[in-house]
Amino acid sequence: MGLIYLDHLAATPLHPKVKEAMINYIANVFGNPSSDNQVGQPATQALEKAREQVAALINAGDPKEVVFGSGGTESINHAIKGVAIGLREKGRHIITSNIEHKAVLNSLRTLRLLDYRVTSLDVDQYGLVDPAAVEKAITPETILISVMLANNEIGTIEPVAEIAKIAQKHKVVMHTDAVAATGVIPVDVQALGVNLLSLAANQFYGPAGVGALYVKKGTPVWPLLDGGLQENKRRAGTENLIGIVGLGMAAEMARLEMPERLPRLKALKERLQQGLVERIPEIKINGDPTRCLPHLFSVSVEYIEGESLVLMLDEEGIIVATRSACASGSLRASHVLIGTGLGHALAQGTLVFTLGMDNTEADIDKVITVMPGIVQTLRDMSPLYKTEHAG
Amino acid sequence: MGLIYLDHLAATPLHPKVKEAMINYIANVFGNPSSDNQVGQPATQALEKAREQVAALINAGDPKEVVFGSGGTESINHAIKGVAIGLREKGRHIITSNIEHKAVLNSLRTLRLLDYRVTSLDVDQYGLVDPAAVEKAITPETILISVMLANNEIGTIEPVAEIAKIAQKHKVVMHTDAVAATGVIPVDVQALGVNLLSLAANQFYGPAGVGALYVKKGTPVWPLLDGGLQENKRRAGTENLIGIVGLGMAAEMARLEMPERLPRLKALKERLQQGLVERIPEIKINGDPTRCLPHLFSVSVEYIEGESLVLMLDEEGIIVATRSACASGSLRASHVLIGTGLGHALAQGTLVFTLGMDNTEADIDKVITVMPGIVQTLRDMSPLYKTEHAG
Repeated sequence: MGLIYLDHLAATPLHPKVKEAMINYIANVFGNPSSDNQVGQPATQALEKAREQVAALINAGDPKEVVFGSGGTESINHAIKGVAIGLREKGRHIITSNIEHKAVLNSLRTLRLLDYRVTSLDVDQYGLVDPAAVEKAITPETILISVMLANNEIGTIEPVAEIAKIAQKHKVVMHTDAVAATGVIPVDVQALGVNLLSLAANQFYGPAGVGALYVKKGTPVWPLLDGGLQENKRRAGTENLIGIVGLGMAAEMARLEMPERLPRLKALKERLQQGLVERIPEIKINGDPTRCLPHLFSVSVEYIEGESLVLMLDEEGIIVATRSACASGSLRASHVLIGTGLGHALAQGTLVFTLGMDNTEADIDKVITVMPGIVQTLRDMSPLYKTEHAG
Repeated sequence: MGLIYLDHLAATPLHPKVKEAMINYIANVFGNPSSDNQVGQPATQALEKAREQVAALINAGDPKEVVFGSGGTESINHAIKGVAIGLREKGRHIITSNIEHKAVLNSLRTLRLLDYRVTSLDVDQYGLVDPAAVEKAITPETILISVMLANNEIGTIEPVAEIAKIAQKHKVVMHTDAVAATGVIPVDVQALGVNLLSLAANQFYGPAGVGALYVKKGTPVWPLLDGGLQENKRRAGTENLIGIVGLGMAAEMARLEMPERLPRLKALKERLQQGLVERIPEIKINGDPTRCLPHLFSVSVEYIEGESLVLMLDEEGIIVATRSACASGSLRASHVLIGTGLGHALAQGTLVFTLGMDNTEADIDKVITVMPGIVQTLRDMSPLYKTEHAG
């Protein structure tokens, strides 16, 4: 049975060009780019080519502003803790939102132990951060604002450019976690006006465990990984070049193929969303209806547990998630959904579909056909559903 | 012209079995081990197999004590900063030595900014740390001792088991940077008695940018990368599984092949060292003559610049380094050599040879034949040499 894979947030398959580039690198190159010799040179060339590929994807002014690391989580930790240490003499106050990724929220939890103060802003029912609330929260002690570009559970795209303008006005450093957005929608660091932006290859058909932090020239960010002089002295440690070559190629393919990918994904998502809304009563679409990622779709189903639904869909060969994979293993309801005001019960009955470029209309139609019956089966086992629908 | 590669400290070529395992993984698997579904399962299996392979190499009591990360530098930063935060209420004093890797020394430099205090111990002329000096430096505020297992520039093997006993007696956490040692010589975390041990795949025919931190059960170490629940909650971020699969296979091959590799490397090193000492006057072998790595060999050549020597050897197809690749780009003399009492001039005239399993006696003989002439050519251009050898 062919699987219908609708969990591209957890992992994207490698693009064929990415596979080819990585396998070719593994077969032929092994040098250390820090070695100034014949063996190091091909590694240096591969490293700098990947840096240019990533810079082109996000429109960085200078490839040197791209700092490679071990993925979205490292880039986010680097940005937040790096500014915290870099600007510790200026102040110890940081502003963020309640629905950020755990890499942001838990980095801030650690900084609280070291006497930093955090303001975490509420969002509205669509998950939107209010730029006016950000401005109101700024104090003379504020050193950093971190607001995500697109939410990884509900797809809402935040007004980052607007918030960055406010940050600039108040001379506060601005970071955006663009992990869920980069490689999916157009991301332009100069148009956004941010100082720092995090991205990860595994969101756009590159390998897991490799990412980058965009660091605008002059941004006072201390290294997270101290040691050698790699990455223009911003990130120590011998580079994961096999992964970086994969990230570079994935970035290039995302840039080149985005004009085709976007309308395809939007159409598939529209088909899925409409099909489910028409066929399953008492469901709720989460996130902002228009300012949202083109491939992600969160739906809360009344009276059922998301986990049970995922298992029954899995048996039908349909792979979907209840939430971000980073949070799997946690039994608590999603802080993102709770942040938008969803009740605990409905939050627990939520699925996140993330579509990818291999998905077809036939995949979507299978889901639309199969899911209503499964939902009904689960609801028929729910005492609450029976009570509320009795008579 | 076939290259003679004698810089295995900077990068080891991938073991054929490692290449095979990584290419096979790239071609066939892409899931996220945090996904509890059909796509995530093969990834979970690969992750846990690699964990067992690494645990077996270092004799960890439980594979769960192996925490994967992005290389030696990350593991070292994780160990040092993680204990610093984990035990911040107990005290803020850390003990180390003057000849540690920059990942150790610069992590401690960052902690100084956050009001931690560091005692950095002198070493003797062989680069040995004195366990009695460690014990003397311990105060009630001491939370961590970090002493490397083998030095990456001079090869000296430190008395880590002895120091770990002292640490245990005083209830201080003990970390050892075993990056240069693991996979090269037998490393047994239980025999060493350490709480934390750092290792990296690129030192034993695995890929760069992937490593592990051994964390003995119960060690109070805070995550360096905050975020999701990966790595038994010790290290957030979606795993670099392609690299981890490579590290696992490299660990297994190191364990299985070590009985063959060790005597071969020792014999080659002996041949090289003896050949150079016999044929080049006024050179000095650095490090401890007996307590040393079997594949690494540091030699200081009077009256010349190491960089010039490296370039001229490179032209002959012989690849060797002046120092650790992590420090390349720095113009300062090696802190390790200065730490052993070597003068600046001699430190600048130093080469580090690191041998590998592909090297042959013919390689060594070529070096012995070619290098004396190059040294003489360079010395003939040195005014100081001419003055001192006039008449």
